[in-house]
Amino acid sequence: MTTKPLNQLSLTEAINAIELGDTSAEAIINACYDQIDAREPLVSAWQYSLTREQYLQAYRANEEFYKNSRLKGLPVGVKDTIDTASMPTEMGSRLHANRQPADDASCVALIQQAGGIVLGKTVTTEFAYFQPGRTANPKHLQHTPGGSSSGSAAAVADYMVPASLGSQTAASVIRPAAYCGTVGYVGSCGEFSSRGIQPLAQSLDSLGFFARSVDDIVLLRSVLLGNPATAIGADTEEPVKPTKVLLCPGSNVGDTDADMNAAMADLAVQLQHHGIETPELDSCDLISRLVGNHETVMAYEVYRNLAVERQYADRLSESFRGLLQEGESTSRADYLAALSNIAITTRWLWHLHPDVDAILAPAAPGAAPQGLGSTGKPHMSRPWQAMGLPVITLPGLSNAAGLPLGVQLIGKSRDDDELLQTARWIHSHIEGLSC
Amino acid sequence: MTTKPLNQLSLTEAINAIELGDTSAEAIINACYDQIDAREPLVSAWQYSLTREQYLQAYRANEEFYKNSRLKGLPVGVKDTIDTASMPTEMGSRLHANRQPADDASCVALIQQAGGIVLGKTVTTEFAYFQPGRTANPKHLQHTPGGSSSGSAAAVADYMVPASLGSQTAASVIRPAAYCGTVGYVGSCGEFSSRGIQPLAQSLDSLGFFARSVDDIVLLRSVLLGNPATAIGADTEEPVKPTKVLLCPGSNVGDTDADMNAAMADLAVQLQHHGIETPELDSCDLISRLVGNHETVMAYEVYRNLAVERQYADRLSESFRGLLQEGESTSRADYLAALSNIAITTRWLWHLHPDVDAILAPAAPGAAPQGLGSTGKPHMSRPWQAMGLPVITLPGLSNAAGLPLGVQLIGKSRDDDELLQTARWIHSHIEGLSC
Repeated sequence: MTTKPLNQLSLTEAINAIELGDTSAEAIINACYDQIDAREPLVSAWQYSLTREQYLQAYRANEEFYKNSRLKGLPVGVKDTIDTASMPTEMGSRLHANRQPADDASCVALIQQAGGIVLGKTVTTEFAYFQPGRTANPKHLQHTPGGSSSGSAAAVADYMVPASLGSQTAASVIRPAAYCGTVGYVGSCGEFSSRGIQPLAQSLDSLGFFARSVDDIVLLRSVLLGNPATAIGADTEEPVKPTKVLLCPGSNVGDTDADMNAAMADLAVQLQHHGIETPELDSCDLISRLVGNHETVMAYEVYRNLAVERQYADRLSESFRGLLQEGESTSRADYLAALSNIAITTRWLWHLHPDVDAILAPAAPGAAPQGLGSTGKPHMSRPWQAMGLPVITLPGLSNAAGLPLGVQLIGKSRDDDELLQTARWIHSHIEGLSC
Repeated sequence: MTTKPLNQLSLTEAINAIELGDTSAEAIINACYDQIDAREPLVSAWQYSLTREQYLQAYRANEEFYKNSRLKGLPVGVKDTIDTASMPTEMGSRLHANRQPADDASCVALIQQAGGIVLGKTVTTEFAYFQPGRTANPKHLQHTPGGSSSGSAAAVADYMVPASLGSQTAASVIRPAAYCGTVGYVGSCGEFSSRGIQPLAQSLDSLGFFARSVDDIVLLRSVLLGNPATAIGADTEEPVKPTKVLLCPGSNVGDTDADMNAAMADLAVQLQHHGIETPELDSCDLISRLVGNHETVMAYEVYRNLAVERQYADRLSESFRGLLQEGESTSRADYLAALSNIAITTRWLWHLHPDVDAILAPAAPGAAPQGLGSTGKPHMSRPWQAMGLPVITLPGLSNAAGLPLGVQLIGKSRDDDELLQTARWIHSHIEGLSC
């Protein structure tokens, strides 16, 4: 039996402990609420949430169902850009105060059908872009948690819930996971149902999860893809050691901090000691050009997706108005050229490196910057998101000040299962990368 | 000045006539309502609609805005799978009777901002799949209008409104346009904002329009893409004659009727007489295999998108339950193999035929089948939709019984503007293809 506090158990640990009779769902739920009561006034992860009494009432009303379910009635946080039929979905915008969707998003429905309970909606930046919400980084309250899935990352990292849903168009899962020190995963473009997830840019949006272990990510994937046969037997099979990991130093993308560069160098040495080949990507600016391509595609598509909202400029933030202006002035030719360059670079990358198990890169330029006025820079995620690749943030490292440093593993499109196998091996064999 | 009845004007003709002072928006609106009053009891195109009085009240309340707008306050139909904030959106399912979305879909908002008025929601098959609604083919009331955008096609073909929005996952725009005898267009995958359009299968869904001319499609594209500079000067510039049109006989895809084969052969001769090269696609079954790949991808994704609905099997049609069962039993390996084969075939197609202006193929196996119990077979659209290509149905031909026969022109992904240029030339120079 684990000696962790109950609210610190990972989702799979919690399920196993309940199944073994070591604890109960209610005990874990209460431990989560104790943490929320103590920390939410400081962290502000939640936009809307059930009270402890409401939650326990919902659990007890269907206790038999939950006891026999995969997720045991355990709590999940849902980013407030994802529709919920029983709670408002405000997208971090005062334009949508008290907006009540007609339906649950498919991802929410699938979590609920598997016995997860939505404890609440987590704070998002305005329309999942840059204007921050109220959330603080639970590892250092004066630092940003990153965004846009700020509350989803903070709630998991601060042990308020074992798992949460987020979404990423630029760096909205990978970066807050890195800054808060938790596991974050975004699926390949098109991997999950987007029904009920408010779109920002259709060529770039993808659903993601925050959790405390790679096994939890595998479990949540299995819940959402709805076919148990496709789940990797996370708790039974040993992951296979990767043979080749392509290193992508930050310099391929843009500026990184010295402590991040040192962490990357250390990880490379460790991988080599395990006999894993670690060729280094020499991208001749091809990857860094995707940063600009991503910005172009995002601006063009956001302007057209936010057709309703752009009529109310006075109720949008300055940064969001800037994005809309950029989108309005982006020509179709520039947009199509960006899409085309992204497609060509994707083919170039895998043609040059057909047999790598994953790419290892910084998940952010460094640790979370000080201040809550900005969510930090997103450029480290833009190239991979532009290419629609599955990505996972692995936490565990930290800088001299004790702030989390996250690295990301990147897979081939739709090879999400293979990426998670590699992530499981690396996560459990490389020093410093424990959660 | 045109001598057509006012409700038969195309959207661009109507706008031009209003701008020239030859008629007024109110006169056209009234002519549309006269047609609806006369024909709706027979055709059943509308799921929900404004009364004439409600429409005129809405128009008059903002008359100055409409007079100065691009779309002049003219009526547009919207498929009932597309969210509207002021009208229910029921997706053709009794499960969603009176469902009221919180927001307008972006495409609806953009039409309204350009001065279009949503006259009503058009009948769709259940969740845009196969189970028909009440709509009849306006050209022969005992025949199917096709589906799933049944009401949107019928309303435009029967001169109730000049234009409407639809969506296509398999054949839901191209086939009803062919059966009803109107122009139908689906954009490249990812071309338009999907916000507020209820998704069926994320790898396949695309937005489409019905209208009476290619110029109208160009105009609606310009309204939705929101950047006037990208619109082709439809009413001023002569379209460029295509140099090469790739013929795809029905036999590359599946069964077609003799009258369709004869129509295709006649069009080929006409194109050749204009000096256009017309190589024939010899696909060695590569294209017909995409029919099955499309079915696999669709079933897999629908099962996961309809996560809420699949809990209520007793309120779903038998055909939809069958699709869900197929999706549940489709393995991830089969799904990924289908996606992969689609991608490889797309590259093969354009590698073999890099310089064609468009592909010409039957839009359906033949004319609309008799009976309202089925919307006809979708296989002629599945390969192109699987590849995410832009497609336009060109009407004008008919079989011996006088029923419309439609052909489709298919372009390269994101070359929607170029496809429409080719369509404009063919539409205006090839005999039989006038609307």
